[in-house]
Amino acid sequence: MTRRYKITLAYDGTNFAGFQVQPNQRTVQSVLEAAVNKMSKNSDYITIYGSGRTDAGVHALGQVVHFDFPHDIPAEGMLKGLNSMLPLDCEVVGCEIVPNDFHARFTTHGKRYMYRVSRGRFTNPFKRFYTGHYKYPLDIEKIKEAMPDLVGTHDFSSFVASGSQTKNHVRTIYEATVREDKENDEIIFEFCGNGFLYNQVRIMVATLLEIGNGKRPVHDFLRLYEVKDRNECRETAPASGLYLKEVYYD
Amino acid sequence: MTRRYKITLAYDGTNFAGFQVQPNQRTVQSVLEAAVNKMSKNSDYITIYGSGRTDAGVHALGQVVHFDFPHDIPAEGMLKGLNSMLPLDCEVVGCEIVPNDFHARFTTHGKRYMYRVSRGRFTNPFKRFYTGHYKYPLDIEKIKEAMPDLVGTHDFSSFVASGSQTKNHVRTIYEATVREDKENDEIIFEFCGNGFLYNQVRIMVATLLEIGNGKRPVHDFLRLYEVKDRNECRETAPASGLYLKEVYYD
Repeated sequence: MTRRYKITLAYDGTNFAGFQVQPNQRTVQSVLEAAVNKMSKNSDYITIYGSGRTDAGVHALGQVVHFDFPHDIPAEGMLKGLNSMLPLDCEVVGCEIVPNDFHARFTTHGKRYMYRVSRGRFTNPFKRFYTGHYKYPLDIEKIKEAMPDLVGTHDFSSFVASGSQTKNHVRTIYEATVREDKENDEIIFEFCGNGFLYNQVRIMVATLLEIGNGKRPVHDFLRLYEVKDRNECRETAPASGLYLKEVYYD
Repeated sequence: MTRRYKITLAYDGTNFAGFQVQPNQRTVQSVLEAAVNKMSKNSDYITIYGSGRTDAGVHALGQVVHFDFPHDIPAEGMLKGLNSMLPLDCEVVGCEIVPNDFHARFTTHGKRYMYRVSRGRFTNPFKRFYTGHYKYPLDIEKIKEAMPDLVGTHDFSSFVASGSQTKNHVRTIYEATVREDKENDEIIFEFCGNGFLYNQVRIMVATLLEIGNGKRPVHDFLRLYEVKDRNECRETAPASGLYLKEVYYD
């Protein structure tokens, strides 16, 4: 009899080649599978299922994964055991035993992402891996005016990276906010939605910054939903500013 | 005719083997000298003089250095030029042309250091290089009560690392504060003084944490000034939490 564990993970994406296992690469999935399989000792190989991938350099505050474990370990013991074996750039921040019909990827209702933009003329040494840097002028009021255009159900074909396999580009955004963190000289975006396409958040952020910079009209998103053309949104904000903040389940 | 430039530097110490030039090591001085000498083109080799060393892993928000430059470049042009050539973990945050009797090391009146302690059961992946982590119980009130014992002129022989060449261990601390950053679950120390011995701040922080943990009496500093014995203070807080915040001149 196996038990299903739901794990909430925080990781610094800087030194990972993304979430998903790849040959000869250090990924979040590979270091976590190594830790879980070390704990299970000599049982069959245990595979980790994530809520979705994150790219190289993208961070997580609340990535969720599940796996089936052959031994009876309390959730608290699993959390401590994994943290004692994981490298310091990946931390288990939550662990619970869940019913066997829970699935990290297929039973999620949505996700929340944060994007940190650092300002200033030059890259701050302490933020180079943890923000996207934008040194050009920005009118934050224009960005604030554009944000409501993102909320709702839209065809995001203009905002999907060319590598995406997904045919259906319609997604719903429940909440899209921007705020200035004046003390740290940052602009912080948050997006909560039922799902996001490959690179969608980073392309949306780059487009919002172009609106703030005056390169695009404030309500250009409304046009971009219609034209359905990635060539209209060529810029992608850097991976370093993106954080998977929360994954929602029932 | 050379001009003397005073440069204020911020750097992420994680990937530097400290400030000072060492053979076959990446140091702050070596990357800065490389940039300055590239700007000076084919003149004699230009040496950088820092306000003092920082150890491997120690950060700076306001390290100060000076050098003499053979060409007439405005301070603003020097700042831009150096930042275009420096790696992203080192940034020039200030530049001015100063009289030839300014010396980054010999004319300083004091320094300010900050030390960030992160709390929590496990190391936060985003703080592993930027704080010292202390997971044991702490009574912050005890630490607050101890802080005034640090202010004033004392013999810090109990707080100097064995590698130090300095014979005179008397230093003056003008200000010593501690505050809780509850939002980020950190405890932040600041120390301002006329000068600090090798590892002094890190040994003082480790001792203050032992006071907060109840391993030492609150006013143990008064005894430690008298006994003048490093064996009484064996612990040294990690380099990753230490920041050289400001260097003072007239």
